[in-house]
Amino acid sequence: MQASIVSVGTELLFGQTVNTNATFLSDRLNKMGIDVMYHFTVGDNPDRLTEILEAALDKTDLVITTGGLGPTQDDLTKEIVCRVLKDELVLNEPALLAIQQFFLKVSRPMTENNIKQAYVPKGALVFHNAMGTAPGFALTQKNKTVACLPGPPREMSAMFDASLAPYIEKMTGSNIFYRMIRTYGIGESALETALIDLIDNQTDPTIATYAMEGECYLRVTSKRDQLEEAQHQVNIMVDQIVARIGRYVYSVDGQNLVDVVAQKLMEKGLTISCAESCTGGLFSATLTRVPGISSVFDRGFVTYSNRAKIDQLGVLPETLEEYGAVSMETANEMSNGVYRATGSNFCIAVTGIAGPEGGTEEKPVGLVYISLVYTDEKGNQQVYSEEKFIQRNHREKNREITVLAMLHQIYRQLLLL
Amino acid sequence: MQASIVSVGTELLFGQTVNTNATFLSDRLNKMGIDVMYHFTVGDNPDRLTEILEAALDKTDLVITTGGLGPTQDDLTKEIVCRVLKDELVLNEPALLAIQQFFLKVSRPMTENNIKQAYVPKGALVFHNAMGTAPGFALTQKNKTVACLPGPPREMSAMFDASLAPYIEKMTGSNIFYRMIRTYGIGESALETALIDLIDNQTDPTIATYAMEGECYLRVTSKRDQLEEAQHQVNIMVDQIVARIGRYVYSVDGQNLVDVVAQKLMEKGLTISCAESCTGGLFSATLTRVPGISSVFDRGFVTYSNRAKIDQLGVLPETLEEYGAVSMETANEMSNGVYRATGSNFCIAVTGIAGPEGGTEEKPVGLVYISLVYTDEKGNQQVYSEEKFIQRNHREKNREITVLAMLHQIYRQLLLL
Repeated sequence: MQASIVSVGTELLFGQTVNTNATFLSDRLNKMGIDVMYHFTVGDNPDRLTEILEAALDKTDLVITTGGLGPTQDDLTKEIVCRVLKDELVLNEPALLAIQQFFLKVSRPMTENNIKQAYVPKGALVFHNAMGTAPGFALTQKNKTVACLPGPPREMSAMFDASLAPYIEKMTGSNIFYRMIRTYGIGESALETALIDLIDNQTDPTIATYAMEGECYLRVTSKRDQLEEAQHQVNIMVDQIVARIGRYVYSVDGQNLVDVVAQKLMEKGLTISCAESCTGGLFSATLTRVPGISSVFDRGFVTYSNRAKIDQLGVLPETLEEYGAVSMETANEMSNGVYRATGSNFCIAVTGIAGPEGGTEEKPVGLVYISLVYTDEKGNQQVYSEEKFIQRNHREKNREITVLAMLHQIYRQLLLL
Repeated sequence: MQASIVSVGTELLFGQTVNTNATFLSDRLNKMGIDVMYHFTVGDNPDRLTEILEAALDKTDLVITTGGLGPTQDDLTKEIVCRVLKDELVLNEPALLAIQQFFLKVSRPMTENNIKQAYVPKGALVFHNAMGTAPGFALTQKNKTVACLPGPPREMSAMFDASLAPYIEKMTGSNIFYRMIRTYGIGESALETALIDLIDNQTDPTIATYAMEGECYLRVTSKRDQLEEAQHQVNIMVDQIVARIGRYVYSVDGQNLVDVVAQKLMEKGLTISCAESCTGGLFSATLTRVPGISSVFDRGFVTYSNRAKIDQLGVLPETLEEYGAVSMETANEMSNGVYRATGSNFCIAVTGIAGPEGGTEEKPVGLVYISLVYTDEKGNQQVYSEEKFIQRNHREKNREITVLAMLHQIYRQLLLL
């Protein structure tokens, strides 16, 4: 099956918004064994949208649109789909009810134009929008399918996974299975070198590597007549890969490092607290993205100023003076201070220079110190200190990679338990 | 002048790479007064590339391609451009010399297939590649222009600015100007309702609304023969809009709320500290994204557990027992605790239920309490407390929108100073 993605939205043509929807859908469709042949982007203009929709339907069997399902006048994807497929818009009562409930729930008045969102093509299967108000839908006519998803990425991706993917799976037959191996601490070229023979000889399963910020992914995919066979082949290959580069692997099922760490902490009932300088709360914010983390996360100290480090964590003024706020000594006093205040099993601290200013020749932007105090239930203590040099010339990236490094420090200790 | 962007590369259709080139070019072209009508993405396939190139040339005057100029066999953009425009590839001596010099400079051997990169259409104006080896070019025939740029974003953007932009400027004359109004606290439909007559009667300037997470944008654009005239017309319209919905507007120049708030704090030298429960450090992490914020941000307390709220902020155990951790009373004690510990001008605290679990009928997921203590240099104090109900059924979204609400609380107080 061949697909096109039609992104609707003037903001894309203005260059204000990056079209991550097309990337997301392409990735998902490829994993499902569907070849994406074209991306089209067009503004909120009826004639050009008609023309592009007709071209996409002519060239491919499956056309997925994103955007233009909102309540305002320039949202016209549904109208144009009806024009092209000679269908008509009808009020969908369950969709209207869902929209009314949404507004009730958020205690906002529902304006007249929101009702427009509850209209869908007569022949369509309607998809509930779990993240917003505009429903989506799919419509199959003479072996051609048009599916319309909302534009906001979260609404779109949730609806794709929950509703459109199963719809497409029913239409296609073949069985594809993949696993995503996630690694930390090895670069993409080194990874490829370690697996070069497997990569060169691949037919099925296939192996693809992706370099991400501070980590690498490996995707192992098989497409067979039987799902069980695809799973079996993928599992054999994953085992082979793990046998070679296992010490860099933290997940063979695509989990985030923070989810892996949080899950282990919650399973074992190990508490955690932190102190942050350069990351400014990003470690806490990342950890607390995980639902249920309140059972083990006690508190975070965002000690940005020196005074805060002294007041909250008992860092010695002499240490700050002699070694500076960005030093191993300060990091160690910070993590010890967290332990004194909380007694948490894991007390982790970080200090560094996120940039873009504040670097010196001796202590350049990207230099960070991480200190971890781990204490078991018997009071035995391990201290790990790490100096790391992250140089991305980008404040936010430096901070994100620092948080990954902190999580991996905790992960390594968790492996020893 | 109307333009299309044709992105060539199978990696885009695989969903491995986000198409930032199309975004970059669209932004640049719009600012130059050129309307971008379509984006097309196609793989390294001669027939489909031919077909898309022909369609793009049929629909628009200017077609910019990115990608497919490399040395390998599947790089075939130039060949297809020649096929469509009935031109032929010839060896360009200066381009060959530049490629040879590039390899000398990086001390890497130049392989045979790199010579392929020095071939360009006979009738083209060649663009030097300051960042890599593949030259680009532009070719005008019968009022239609095709310009081909390399795929790597750095090479592409440098070549656009250095060579293609001046080439296009020579071709066009008109001037475009726009301003982006950012609002908080008003939904897209209500915004449209408030401005419906302006939107309905728009010719130039045009007004477009965009709904983002928790906020809305309005873009006002004018295109005139003279830049000054476009600026003048946009400014008049922006004033009209601000006169109507000014209390929701926090920027008329496209700035983020956090940047607006941080800039005002830094300008006035007003210090800030915070205490977070449900947002788990996200407020701190958001504020500390801004470079230079260390001059006013003292510290953050991520008091996730009740014990942390008691220990660090002096919240009374009775308050937690009687009203619960998620209550206005707790929020107020938290912000007061921040003030006692720091004396910062702005002490803001938040407690709430981020979800997905933990909600009750009385206190559902999405309920948050924000408390702000503002103290001026004379010690005069204002306290603002806000109960807010954010219902997005999505933990991270709830947290992000909560941070926006906190920033807006501070913004409102800053406006009074």
